[in-house]
Amino acid sequence: MVKLTVKVVGIKLGILGLGTVGTGVVQLLQDAVGRHPLLAEIEIYRVGVRSLAKDRAVSLPPGIITTDLISLVKDPEIDIIVEVMGAIEPAFSLILTAIAQGKHIVTANKALLSRFGSEIFTAANKAGVYVMLEASVGGGIPIIQPLKQSLSVNRIHSLTGIINGTTNYILTQMQTEGSDFSQVLTDAQRLGYAESDPTADVDGLDAADKIAILASLAFGGQINLSEVYCEGIRQISPTDIAYATKLGFVIKLLAIAKDQNNDSNQISVRVHPTLVPQSHPLANINGVYNAILVEGEPVGQVMFFGPGAGAGATASAVTSDILNLVATLKTHPAQPHPLITCQNQPYCQITPIGMLVTRFYARFLSQDNPGVMGKLGTCFGKQGVSLESVVQIGIHQELAEIIVITHNVQESDFRAALAEIETLAEIHSIPSVLRVLPD
Amino acid sequence: MVKLTVKVVGIKLGILGLGTVGTGVVQLLQDAVGRHPLLAEIEIYRVGVRSLAKDRAVSLPPGIITTDLISLVKDPEIDIIVEVMGAIEPAFSLILTAIAQGKHIVTANKALLSRFGSEIFTAANKAGVYVMLEASVGGGIPIIQPLKQSLSVNRIHSLTGIINGTTNYILTQMQTEGSDFSQVLTDAQRLGYAESDPTADVDGLDAADKIAILASLAFGGQINLSEVYCEGIRQISPTDIAYATKLGFVIKLLAIAKDQNNDSNQISVRVHPTLVPQSHPLANINGVYNAILVEGEPVGQVMFFGPGAGAGATASAVTSDILNLVATLKTHPAQPHPLITCQNQPYCQITPIGMLVTRFYARFLSQDNPGVMGKLGTCFGKQGVSLESVVQIGIHQELAEIIVITHNVQESDFRAALAEIETLAEIHSIPSVLRVLPD
Repeated sequence: MVKLTVKVVGIKLGILGLGTVGTGVVQLLQDAVGRHPLLAEIEIYRVGVRSLAKDRAVSLPPGIITTDLISLVKDPEIDIIVEVMGAIEPAFSLILTAIAQGKHIVTANKALLSRFGSEIFTAANKAGVYVMLEASVGGGIPIIQPLKQSLSVNRIHSLTGIINGTTNYILTQMQTEGSDFSQVLTDAQRLGYAESDPTADVDGLDAADKIAILASLAFGGQINLSEVYCEGIRQISPTDIAYATKLGFVIKLLAIAKDQNNDSNQISVRVHPTLVPQSHPLANINGVYNAILVEGEPVGQVMFFGPGAGAGATASAVTSDILNLVATLKTHPAQPHPLITCQNQPYCQITPIGMLVTRFYARFLSQDNPGVMGKLGTCFGKQGVSLESVVQIGIHQELAEIIVITHNVQESDFRAALAEIETLAEIHSIPSVLRVLPD
Repeated sequence: MVKLTVKVVGIKLGILGLGTVGTGVVQLLQDAVGRHPLLAEIEIYRVGVRSLAKDRAVSLPPGIITTDLISLVKDPEIDIIVEVMGAIEPAFSLILTAIAQGKHIVTANKALLSRFGSEIFTAANKAGVYVMLEASVGGGIPIIQPLKQSLSVNRIHSLTGIINGTTNYILTQMQTEGSDFSQVLTDAQRLGYAESDPTADVDGLDAADKIAILASLAFGGQINLSEVYCEGIRQISPTDIAYATKLGFVIKLLAIAKDQNNDSNQISVRVHPTLVPQSHPLANINGVYNAILVEGEPVGQVMFFGPGAGAGATASAVTSDILNLVATLKTHPAQPHPLITCQNQPYCQITPIGMLVTRFYARFLSQDNPGVMGKLGTCFGKQGVSLESVVQIGIHQELAEIIVITHNVQESDFRAALAEIETLAEIHSIPSVLRVLPD
């Protein structure tokens, strides 16, 4: 390195997709004044779309928009493919074709990366190209680069995230309004905060994709998505939210990846609604905001907070990836950058959910009978489940409502105790079982 | 870029200083298993200290520790100088000497960077070396790299930070315990959260150094530290904390850098205690934790939270800088990396505090006289100060206590009104004037 004048190299982009995110990226690139000067050197060379007929919120010179996606990813003029079309196919095939042509990739496609990241990274490493994925998790929040670079010297112990804006909005509304899940979901759909088919969000699948990507980076191994335990928020009731509040908690859909023994041999990766103590940094993350708490050694607790979705936020992440890629390429490196290349290591050992050690909250409806508490205690005691608190909170339709919070217990032992409790004549039902932070 | 096998290059460090942070860095480097594999290639070659006689918490091979700091920074074997000795001199001269010898710099020295960053960056750019400064602000929180890289495509509108752990600890304790400043300070000194001379922390000077560094990165211009308005927390009373709580605020020492008109022409850079609405993301940052809220376009609000000090946290930042530097050097770049090099642009125009437009909280002690409110209103009205709320809260030693919160007003107009109010016969005193977020 001898001088700091940088040769101007025009970098040409091929953008796949001109939906919300693609439009945001084009708008950002077309409005470069007052941003990093390097942006001005980036050219939108081709934009691939499904239909030319659709009205677009951005205007592009004639000939740039095309429906011939195969030609686009093979175009020898293009340096970087920006994939913001979503879904598995044709995105997967197009990305592999682009990589085989020596093109670098910027993608926001969490569903694709969580399922086929390994195939994509293998191909990219073979071709000597980068795959940038900041926008795949947490929208505009910088989290991928911090994990790969700023926190790279740490041993990561855990990641705990609110990484789905739709469910966080729904839970926040249920908390503040005292409303039912289904009622809030309908409102959220009307306001555009939830899809007409809300499955991916409310059943935790979107969060599972994202925590699989983050866990893979934090623990240096592939994550088999089918091993990620996933429980959504459909069963969360205003009753449980109210009891949680009384006990000093809020209910959040958390995505957690945790090195069980701090030796990277057993990783627990899971998505489930969780009781979070009101004093915990994640307890105050409300509405559509996302946050990811990283615990590492020696750094301690670091949290990243921001908008988890939206055109502008996601465009910020996608375009920053483009800029970082351009900046790296402009150094004319003779070797790939060891912190930016994709790591493609063996699979992590994922702890089955039954082996998880955590605290639990459970709500029981029972006959209002003085012997019930003792019988509950006996069933828990047999399985070695130690109770932190037992509260008989009230009478609900002539049934007593009993809330239990356990100390840390292995999940399978707790479930065995619940199975026995369900057979007790005095127990009417167990309407809810939730995990409790910190475990 | 053709293959991904990276040649092993031993990188040799010269570390200046073996205090808390230096010891943390050495410990981290000596315990590389389970961290990024590249760390194993970094060699601690020399450590410069003031006295060889002092007992050290780390053991280093004989001959590594030296008091000859000049020879250390001139040692031709050394690639990177890690400056963790603090203070201006001899750190400044040693860094300039090292740069002149072509060595890259990693530093945690906020006082030096905020005063002489320009000289250091000019020398570094001339010599073609990097100066890495992640640890200078926010301890272990990644904030420098996010500003320089992850958020680089955004137009930054404002940075609002709690970036001094000592004052945040003191204010949090005053809030929760209802205690006096001086009493909490004494406790904090005993617990090691405050220095025996607490001036740099409690008068806001440390936060001013840090916000000057952040503002310079966010707004792409040098900041003249003497133009940074700085007000500490010595005058904060339990009375004001209690009133703030009643009105829905908490009092925090904020460091703020704001593009006044979103055109980068007028930047306001300041440190002062501030009433923060309880729902604001910074309101829940308590104890010794730090957080920096970045507002940019198009990303929106992004916040970075974590431990603002401590051996482990700061060592994480310093060592990550070393690792990122090593990773960049290992690509054998022909050109410097445009996002990592130091920018050394013209000075930013800093808005004088009198020109600041913000909201104010003021507390008046007056005779308990029905005409006082009217007179206050007249004085404010003359200066165009519009009031959001006026509350007569109570009687205090036979005087009425009146709290006023204004709408946005130019500070000089508000001060002019206060000057006139002070001359009113009915006004006994104005014990406190504080700014209010959001402005």
